Amino acid sequence: MLTASEMDYRPYISYDRAELLVRIQMHLDQARYQHCLRVEQTAIDLAEKYHADVKQAGLAGLVHDYAKQRSNSEFKTVILDEGFDTRLLEYNNGIWHGIVGTYFIERELGITNSTILNAVRRHTIGAPEMSVIDQIVFIADYIEPGRDFPGVEEARKAAAKSLTDGVQYELKNVLLYLVENDSKVFPPTIESYNAWLPTKGD
Amino acid sequence: MLTASEMDYRPYISYDRAELLVRIQMHLDQARYQHCLRVEQTAIDLAEKYHADVKQAGLAGLVHDYAKQRSNSEFKTVILDEGFDTRLLEYNNGIWHGIVGTYFIERELGITNSTILNAVRRHTIGAPEMSVIDQIVFIADYIEPGRDFPGVEEARKAAAKSLTDGVQYELKNVLLYLVENDSKVFPPTIESYNAWLPTKGD
Repeated sequence: MLTASEMDYRPYISYDRAELLVRIQMHLDQARYQHCLRVEQTAIDLAEKYHADVKQAGLAGLVHDYAKQRSNSEFKTVILDEGFDTRLLEYNNGIWHGIVGTYFIERELGITNSTILNAVRRHTIGAPEMSVIDQIVFIADYIEPGRDFPGVEEARKAAAKSLTDGVQYELKNVLLYLVENDSKVFPPTIESYNAWLPTKGD
Repeated sequence: MLTASEMDYRPYISYDRAELLVRIQMHLDQARYQHCLRVEQTAIDLAEKYHADVKQAGLAGLVHDYAKQRSNSEFKTVILDEGFDTRLLEYNNGIWHGIVGTYFIERELGITNSTILNAVRRHTIGAPEMSVIDQIVFIADYIEPGRDFPGVEEARKAAAKSLTDGVQYELKNVLLYLVENDSKVFPPTIESYNAWLPTKGD
């Protein structure tokens, strides 16, 4: 078992993990920062189990919520100035912090690896096609040990069975949760859900 | 209370209701034909209650499933030859019979009124903006007296409260049903759902 504190992310950043932690803490409150550490470790564990790149998984997990606590006005400025799809303006931080958050990660943390940035980009709503690292970060965020919601144990069991099961369970249950609570659904979420549906008869 | 058998649809068709019934029966089995008659009556009742045009509502209700039993190959040919969005090809009769069904209704039944055709077009997945006739047909199809599914009584109560409540209830529950059953969701369904969400705090 690898632990996060042993990780050397210098293939992807020019400074060490200790400095990265300081930079992340500057922008997050304690609860959110601790969540990021747990997602990092969960992503490392999943990467080990499924023979994926533990450094990419751990680093993407660690930074996935880096932009979560930026202001709405900061996100809106970036969406308008950096050429993001302006339909994003109809949504909120829940959608922005992944898709638009990569802008802050690249500029402020100097991470340019596309596998890592894509995993951050896709960690909230998934995507029709997801790399193994995308899948790991998407799942790790949902099942990290601090999570406690109805269904989290089933989500953990699904992820233990396969990454595909983990992604399918999460997409379905995130969507059910939104609709049951009369919450707006960002339309690309449906593209992810449709693409990952289990084949009938599975 | 108006009954369907009294209706004169000749503002919209050049022949009488008796002939229209014969034409519809030619293309539907008995169960589906009886459903159409019940949707017609339910749409008339809703139109009376909500002070809408009873002829438009009744006629749209009567013909809403006119194309329901055409073959997949017939639909595919029409989608390709008549300039429909080719993404429709990824879906099935459940989506086609409303959106593409208007082609058959216009050509074979001679109905050209856009209010009626739109109501047929939108009866399966709704739309972000729906006319009163759209709403009536959408609801009538869901709550006609032959319907029996978990939630149909709540749907009837919602429709008795207001058309808006009826549409909201139906969009939410159709979506929940699809996701609970691991069924593909036609993406525009989400545009309808989002647009009709109750304002938080209602």
